[in-house]
Amino acid sequence: MPATPPRIYLDHAATSWPKAEGVAEAMVEFLTNVGSSASRGNYASARKASELTRSLRSQLARFVNAESDHCVSFHSGCTSALNAVMHGLVGPSHAIGTGSHLLTSAVEHNAVLRPLLVAATAAGATIEEVSPDVNGLLSANDVIGKIHDATRLVALSHASNVTGAVQPIAEIGAAIAEHNRLRNKSNQILFLCDAAQSLGYLPVDVQALGVHALAAPAHKGCGGPPGIGMLCLSPEWHDVIQPWMQGGTGHDGRSDVMPESMPEKLEPGTMNLPAIAGWRAAMDWLAPLEDSAQKLAGLSQQLHAGLSSIGGVQVFGRPGPLPITSLDFGPDLPPDDAAAILEGEFGMEVRSGHHCAARIHRHLGTEVAGTVRISGGHGTTPDEIDAAIQAVAEIAAQITALS
Amino acid sequence: MPATPPRIYLDHAATSWPKAEGVAEAMVEFLTNVGSSASRGNYASARKASELTRSLRSQLARFVNAESDHCVSFHSGCTSALNAVMHGLVGPSHAIGTGSHLLTSAVEHNAVLRPLLVAATAAGATIEEVSPDVNGLLSANDVIGKIHDATRLVALSHASNVTGAVQPIAEIGAAIAEHNRLRNKSNQILFLCDAAQSLGYLPVDVQALGVHALAAPAHKGCGGPPGIGMLCLSPEWHDVIQPWMQGGTGHDGRSDVMPESMPEKLEPGTMNLPAIAGWRAAMDWLAPLEDSAQKLAGLSQQLHAGLSSIGGVQVFGRPGPLPITSLDFGPDLPPDDAAAILEGEFGMEVRSGHHCAARIHRHLGTEVAGTVRISGGHGTTPDEIDAAIQAVAEIAAQITALS
Repeated sequence: MPATPPRIYLDHAATSWPKAEGVAEAMVEFLTNVGSSASRGNYASARKASELTRSLRSQLARFVNAESDHCVSFHSGCTSALNAVMHGLVGPSHAIGTGSHLLTSAVEHNAVLRPLLVAATAAGATIEEVSPDVNGLLSANDVIGKIHDATRLVALSHASNVTGAVQPIAEIGAAIAEHNRLRNKSNQILFLCDAAQSLGYLPVDVQALGVHALAAPAHKGCGGPPGIGMLCLSPEWHDVIQPWMQGGTGHDGRSDVMPESMPEKLEPGTMNLPAIAGWRAAMDWLAPLEDSAQKLAGLSQQLHAGLSSIGGVQVFGRPGPLPITSLDFGPDLPPDDAAAILEGEFGMEVRSGHHCAARIHRHLGTEVAGTVRISGGHGTTPDEIDAAIQAVAEIAAQITALS
Repeated sequence: MPATPPRIYLDHAATSWPKAEGVAEAMVEFLTNVGSSASRGNYASARKASELTRSLRSQLARFVNAESDHCVSFHSGCTSALNAVMHGLVGPSHAIGTGSHLLTSAVEHNAVLRPLLVAATAAGATIEEVSPDVNGLLSANDVIGKIHDATRLVALSHASNVTGAVQPIAEIGAAIAEHNRLRNKSNQILFLCDAAQSLGYLPVDVQALGVHALAAPAHKGCGGPPGIGMLCLSPEWHDVIQPWMQGGTGHDGRSDVMPESMPEKLEPGTMNLPAIAGWRAAMDWLAPLEDSAQKLAGLSQQLHAGLSSIGGVQVFGRPGPLPITSLDFGPDLPPDDAAAILEGEFGMEVRSGHHCAARIHRHLGTEVAGTVRISGGHGTTPDEIDAAIQAVAEIAAQITALS
């Protein structure tokens, strides 16, 4: 009887694992010894909770080069941060209204596409979608060429969760800045970037990228826990955005509307303090990105070099800064079956299907069953990548032998 | 030099502490040994995550006597669950539209009042507010008397977070059921109950209460962690509610709209699995409510008996099932100062101010500075209540001596 293969976790694009050192300990420490809500009571443990929140907010503001700590608000995840932006622009402020043109791409995750469709419908706005190449890469010129006078929002991911393609955000951001420079506020574009796959892996400098709203979770590249995410919103948009979620804030308790100050206006309800403690620990653990960048790019290079030499397997994406790629074994082995073999015979945990990205698959030719996605992260070793390549090669050889 | 007084935590209405036994351990176990996302990958650890979610959902459905497990959806907290209901009724389904009458009370937390105001404004609906007595208690007849043909939503808390008053929900629920029985679906009332202060302390049976939507957090009466909450929505409203938040669901990844099935339609984004694991452990720890009810009622009795005998202090609320009460020391000692003395001299952690309940204070006469709130929970001992009474008496005596 063969031994159970060791666990090889290659689903980092879904969530990183193992988590950064100290994350679980920090969460336990908070729950056990502090426990209180932030910004609510005035007693010592509540002040500790507030101080923890303040400290992580400040650390993240520096990490993404925000103009100030007030730009960073906490949300229950990247999805809720994205919803807060898209729905927060529709309404009394009318940043997005009838006839507004909203620009996005076919690469986007459903956390962008789905709220965008709802917000656009509510506002009477139209959505235009830029197509990527077969590797999921967008051309900056394609995006910039579609911007016009009615454009009010450009919503793009920093990196594709399906192919790992890193988009030309800075180039697009520069063009949007130029566009905005010539217009008054009500005609300007908000540039929203979904950094779900990049924060903690790639340098993210909102000012250098020209991004006005950046959403990201703790639980992917930062190695933190799920249940917490951030939005970094540039100061010129603080007055425009309306609170998408309303509730208690610990401030202005006598008012039946949300406070107007940032970040309080976007942070109703009891904060997820254990997760904030965990994210804080993860940020302390995170190596300087210059150090990890070389390693991650090396894994990507290794992954693509190994996989592209295997006959009968189509590989999506190109060697780049992120070790994320998608595979198609052809009609004889649907992605779900391939993933089951990878786990059962090789101990590899990878994801199959559409990866919550509704539109990209028509551009990859994988609309029916999606792909098998292999995604590494900070904890991934070259040996694991070699094991993945070897496993894919063995499966491909079996398909060839049977056909 | 006097010794630092021991920590006496009496802010359970904000969040319970210490947490239930096993909560932190379950969260660490999940982060360390499972780690994966639920409903996403098909590999073993992802299936474990899905099984954990399924198991807690089923346990909570039984706990509140839901019609089925599909009625229970997970949210990032009680606030987001409440927002999901109120905003989910405005929109394409038009359950709430122009001219709709929405009924609530002045006792409500801002997590009800604030989203209700935004939803009503968006829909062109009107809000009517029922007044409580000076203890924060509503009269069922007052509420029922305000229901009429245009009423589409009644939103009430099960128990006040300021005075601990437990509202006559079942009586109101029965009247709403009778009202609905005579009307077709588009003219019926949804009865929304904010169980933030009751779930885990009081029996909550949605069918017996006649509640259609019940929102509650893990981190109060259940002894679980923050960052996770539930909504229990009765089946006849599943088709009516529209997803307030949109994102990836792991299901129907090819679609750019949310799935129509419950609970998936209300659960976009990566689930907070560590918190789900923690809540699961808390539910296992929770004693049968019949056992804890006597203890909690005893603490309430003790608290009120002790406090009401102290001269110069106004006590809000009545002895009841929950040991929550509010105090006013009069104009010579504002609540914030009183709370600071309670902590500094007596080691008591209590909350002062408006407690995120915007409207109740005009009925208590505490509009300017709010109250000092003392709130116990499962972990509270009679000795702690005695210490609280003694501390309040000493402070009151000092005020009297100085005046």
